[in-house]
Amino acid sequence: MSSDSKTGLQLRSLIKNSGELEISLASMPTPEPGPDEVVVRVEASPIEGAGVVIKTGSSDAAKALMGKTVAMIGGAMYAQYRCLKVSECLPLPAGITPAEGASCFVNPLTALGMTETMRREGHKALMHTAAASNLGQMLNKICIKDGIGLVNIVRSPEQADILRKIGAKYIVDSTAPTFMDDLTNALVETGATLAFDAIGGGKLAGQILTCMEISANKTAKVYSRYGSSVHKQVYIYGSLDPRPVELNRAFGMAWGVGGWLLFPFLQKIGSAEGAKLRARVVAELKTTFASHYTQVVSLQEALQPSHIAVYAKRATGEKYLINPNKG
Amino acid sequence: MSSDSKTGLQLRSLIKNSGELEISLASMPTPEPGPDEVVVRVEASPIEGAGVVIKTGSSDAAKALMGKTVAMIGGAMYAQYRCLKVSECLPLPAGITPAEGASCFVNPLTALGMTETMRREGHKALMHTAAASNLGQMLNKICIKDGIGLVNIVRSPEQADILRKIGAKYIVDSTAPTFMDDLTNALVETGATLAFDAIGGGKLAGQILTCMEISANKTAKVYSRYGSSVHKQVYIYGSLDPRPVELNRAFGMAWGVGGWLLFPFLQKIGSAEGAKLRARVVAELKTTFASHYTQVVSLQEALQPSHIAVYAKRATGEKYLINPNKG
Repeated sequence: MSSDSKTGLQLRSLIKNSGELEISLASMPTPEPGPDEVVVRVEASPIEGAGVVIKTGSSDAAKALMGKTVAMIGGAMYAQYRCLKVSECLPLPAGITPAEGASCFVNPLTALGMTETMRREGHKALMHTAAASNLGQMLNKICIKDGIGLVNIVRSPEQADILRKIGAKYIVDSTAPTFMDDLTNALVETGATLAFDAIGGGKLAGQILTCMEISANKTAKVYSRYGSSVHKQVYIYGSLDPRPVELNRAFGMAWGVGGWLLFPFLQKIGSAEGAKLRARVVAELKTTFASHYTQVVSLQEALQPSHIAVYAKRATGEKYLINPNKG
Repeated sequence: MSSDSKTGLQLRSLIKNSGELEISLASMPTPEPGPDEVVVRVEASPIEGAGVVIKTGSSDAAKALMGKTVAMIGGAMYAQYRCLKVSECLPLPAGITPAEGASCFVNPLTALGMTETMRREGHKALMHTAAASNLGQMLNKICIKDGIGLVNIVRSPEQADILRKIGAKYIVDSTAPTFMDDLTNALVETGATLAFDAIGGGKLAGQILTCMEISANKTAKVYSRYGSSVHKQVYIYGSLDPRPVELNRAFGMAWGVGGWLLFPFLQKIGSAEGAKLRARVVAELKTTFASHYTQVVSLQEALQPSHIAVYAKRATGEKYLINPNKG
């Protein structure tokens, strides 16, 4: 362990009494690893981090990771060094860089979790909002590869172009005046009755259910005053729009809206099924699950107003990677 | 079959081009029953009807019902005679009147469906809105008998009194200024994480989820920025408030809101489990599942403005029974 790894910079946030949020960098001592722990030099932090193990505890499992590039589960990744448990590290195959591995957990597993949820809950196709995101592009690649019908909802013609270029078949623009008709037509063609929604607030979830109901009634054999008997489900997994969800219930009684998160999903399916999903991610890390970053910045650079102005927009196509050890 | 059963009055509704709804009584010929059908003289119509079989088709199953008092599944019960399939009739034991039997299907099975859903989805207690209703009273009787924790939400002190008199333990008034605190306390005491909501529109479903989340966090062992990992569920089964549902999502990510209806529930659990629930209803028809009507009216009386003024309020404690053959 080199002498300069004894302390490392960490990104700290403080909410002051005045209501201001203060973001600062602090030089913090790097903890000594316990028997079953390792110290990782963090080289890539999008949401979850990745880096190189530079010190280990005394257990065999910990020692086996020495020098390996690993992806890490957990928060507090905006730091130069991170001490954590062996069980929180996923060793990456030779040839995978920390930048590639940093995207190894959340987005790929979330995208696979969506198609897996579709199968487990008996739907035959699915839809996705904010669909041109990094996650949305991965979901398209999975669905194209696995032959799954996927309806993409985007919010601009530019986002539609991004998806068209990677081969997406069903793309609907929610800002178009024909949105509801376009969406209904795509639902009739695919039979999608499950949506994953990153937007959250406003009327979108209700509009999706309404279009699903119209689509279901186009093929229904009997009329019921309670609406179609086909179950229609929207899972909200993000909150790009922080307003309340507004549901007008113009979609019968066979519907559900709920929260969806990766880690509870992984707990529900169990470690054996989860391991299968992780194995697929590692196997396809340079293809299906490759991420493209527009900027790689240090911790200091991440706090510069010119960078904040870009990434605070949370805009599709502008994806930052923090490398806390960038020179 | 007496000569005057060859035709019977039926309540008919017509939406005119002007947008007016016209309600009228029409004298309609009573159909001849097919082999597996029977004709019932309807003597009680709250939501589902009950009456006496006065003519049958040629099958043994149909003939076996001759003269029996039966409860009936299906709509169009605001008629003096109803021709329907043997499988849509539930023969009632001797000593049960049509008025008692008319309440045999929807409310009792809905109340039992709620506690059954609670068990199947892994909740330990439940809550109910519009809780002083006929259905809500039945649910209290079931929960008291079966030792299930039940939180009742009512909208007036008078409704709270109705429930207190039948032994309800947890009663919360949504019009009280302390509503959110009162509800949270009741949820902490019972551990209820499932609600059945007859109101539907407005903020109530979101308030319920918020109080469940506060309650869950009071006993949580670890903090998560995604909120409690305890799944919180609201099923909307009615629409007393027709406004949109408004969910502010101040309740983490482990939540669901959805529609709930009796017949899809019965289909899901299958006919053997459904038969057990029906057997319990018949066995407890004069106790747990007894209904009290404030008025019994004929079809003609049901259309009089003075009666409409009362039942159109859908007020708790004012429950009308239509007897289409009332003299």
